[in-house]
Amino acid sequence: MKRPAFANWLSDTNDITQTFLSAGQISGLINMAGGLPDPSTWPVSDLSDLAAAAVAQHPHEALAYAPIEGLPVLRDLIAQRFSVHGMRLTRENVLITTGGMQALDLIGKVLLEPGSLIAAQSPAYLGALDAWRPRQPIYRPMRLEANDFDPVTALTGVQFAYTVPNFSNPSGRLVSLAERQALVEAAHVTGTWLVEDDPYGTLYYDSAPLPRMLTLSAQRDEGLYDGPVIYMGTLSKELAPGLRIGWVVAAPNMITTLVTAKQGSDMSTSGLSQRIAHDSFASGLTDHVLPNILSLYRARRDALCAAMKAHLDDLFDWQVPSGGMFVWATARDASMNTDHLLREALFQGVCITPSSVFDPEGQNRRSIRINFTLNDPDKLAEGIRRLTVAARATIAKPQ
Amino acid sequence: MKRPAFANWLSDTNDITQTFLSAGQISGLINMAGGLPDPSTWPVSDLSDLAAAAVAQHPHEALAYAPIEGLPVLRDLIAQRFSVHGMRLTRENVLITTGGMQALDLIGKVLLEPGSLIAAQSPAYLGALDAWRPRQPIYRPMRLEANDFDPVTALTGVQFAYTVPNFSNPSGRLVSLAERQALVEAAHVTGTWLVEDDPYGTLYYDSAPLPRMLTLSAQRDEGLYDGPVIYMGTLSKELAPGLRIGWVVAAPNMITTLVTAKQGSDMSTSGLSQRIAHDSFASGLTDHVLPNILSLYRARRDALCAAMKAHLDDLFDWQVPSGGMFVWATARDASMNTDHLLREALFQGVCITPSSVFDPEGQNRRSIRINFTLNDPDKLAEGIRRLTVAARATIAKPQ
Repeated sequence: MKRPAFANWLSDTNDITQTFLSAGQISGLINMAGGLPDPSTWPVSDLSDLAAAAVAQHPHEALAYAPIEGLPVLRDLIAQRFSVHGMRLTRENVLITTGGMQALDLIGKVLLEPGSLIAAQSPAYLGALDAWRPRQPIYRPMRLEANDFDPVTALTGVQFAYTVPNFSNPSGRLVSLAERQALVEAAHVTGTWLVEDDPYGTLYYDSAPLPRMLTLSAQRDEGLYDGPVIYMGTLSKELAPGLRIGWVVAAPNMITTLVTAKQGSDMSTSGLSQRIAHDSFASGLTDHVLPNILSLYRARRDALCAAMKAHLDDLFDWQVPSGGMFVWATARDASMNTDHLLREALFQGVCITPSSVFDPEGQNRRSIRINFTLNDPDKLAEGIRRLTVAARATIAKPQ
Repeated sequence: MKRPAFANWLSDTNDITQTFLSAGQISGLINMAGGLPDPSTWPVSDLSDLAAAAVAQHPHEALAYAPIEGLPVLRDLIAQRFSVHGMRLTRENVLITTGGMQALDLIGKVLLEPGSLIAAQSPAYLGALDAWRPRQPIYRPMRLEANDFDPVTALTGVQFAYTVPNFSNPSGRLVSLAERQALVEAAHVTGTWLVEDDPYGTLYYDSAPLPRMLTLSAQRDEGLYDGPVIYMGTLSKELAPGLRIGWVVAAPNMITTLVTAKQGSDMSTSGLSQRIAHDSFASGLTDHVLPNILSLYRARRDALCAAMKAHLDDLFDWQVPSGGMFVWATARDASMNTDHLLREALFQGVCITPSSVFDPEGQNRRSIRINFTLNDPDKLAEGIRRLTVAARATIAKPQ
């Protein structure tokens, strides 16, 4: 039976996805492709207690439909947590979302029509491309590090600019203070929205965090925040992804518009998860687990980069990231096709992510993203040994 | 500062929403407008224990990113629960969603382009209209009870037909077995999808449930279900809405396409909520609480209808619903505008929902939806007394 056609955007997919799916079948595979936290960092016993208490002590918050915009206690807490001297936030600036991904989906729903322009930091987060594909936008890539990058030109005429300033996925790059200031200034000048997607904002391994563009964009002493930045945070990296808790901090009129979109998306985020998130912050649990996460991931980053230095130095260039979850490496040989490298790597028993999936046009085939948070140092070193074999085989084999 | 315009669909809203929002401010208001379960039906202590155990005993399921399509144990359980003799379902037929609302959103994403046709049972569930508004479809109303209703004509050329066969929101109407069979047959003949939205499927107060269209559409002895029905269920009415657990049962190719859309919507549904849902079903808790819910809501339906009979009989026509959460009443006076009635009702301290919000064109202004699950019999009776005063005032006052 022939049925009605699916929507057009569904045909616009990357065929590398099938390769990833088949990777799940390989036994003994070292997975350095994902962006997963290490489960050993989760405070299981504390979260079990908080889950029980959330239902028993706050049954209406945990079990009823939550307000679309989120539980007032959690919105207040987020507002307070992101307030700094000179920038006042209240719950009117905060929307709770079902993970960080939903914030991307909602932004697409309220700001994009087919053909709308997005200025996107390049290479761009795959999940954002997925979230916006149903709205069929057009991308203007921003290479913030290029000598001739002009933020005002880049932001002119776009519905919004999309950035991951802290340890961008996939590049691992930290956007400098000067670059942040220039983007914020350009957002003010052009009158467009500036999306600051910040899942890795707490994962600084070598220095104190840089100021958020949210903070930099606040007009001092002007009352409630009403600036151009749409800030997106998540509990997935600092506590646990299974709760599916994210948040947006933005101007009140953006929040109310996102609420309209969220009503028709999932009505509200789990009240149980929201109450647990609130209590994790309020009890200090979230802040308590962070130092352990940082020291674990710092050691893994160091182990990965040491193994890369020992084995891959003649094949790839990379920068040691000062935070986040990924190293981005670019082949010295311009003819390297990392889609082909992935197939060789799977054959060797290691999985990395090729750059094509982070390019809206699928053209960039010379780089790879390597995750260092999920595996211990020995596995990371073994993964790099396997990847080196695969890289030499890819170069040796004309495709 | 002028910012980029919001997407077009956001301007397409009903101004009655503001009236509802202001209703929250009225003290002593009797709210018969929503579709909320009674919190006294929630097994708080059991759910607190299940929540603690979900995290402590299944930390990876509860706290990691769940598979996009849902936890395998929960998908298996839903497949088994909805299987009947002659229709085989496996986890490939099941997607777990973030509440029933997300299933509507995902169906819109995979089946609708601007201008796509939907055949929708009329009047239609407000939430479905909200979910599909960003895709800007066109509606063909189906009045299943009309003498001249022809299912094949209605379903020809549409992307899908949308129905709530069990105690439709808002009409409370039970779609008969003959009507179900005719819709299923028409879906087979026309080759289109048939959405069976079933949030109230367990809330039968007077008789045994009629067979689902999902079941009726199965081709006997043909292996895995691959029929035209997209069935949607939810835990919100039978257990608690705050968990945000819903599910889709459909042909495997529809499930995999919905999974692509879910990936970019919220990545996955809370693993904690999914594990609790599984354990609530598997332990028998969900089935255990149902008789209490049924007897509570049956008594409230009877109390509401008795009060309506005593006070509203000369002003409105209605049918006593044999299940669900709502009574749908239509004014005898064709000049009654129930948007105006809502304003008078709020002035009297009672809130109901006017029919205009359930009509994609906003034209139907003669009916109201009255909820009976949230308030006890005394409050329901007092609410009807207030509504009667409001209705007489509306008729007496030329607008």
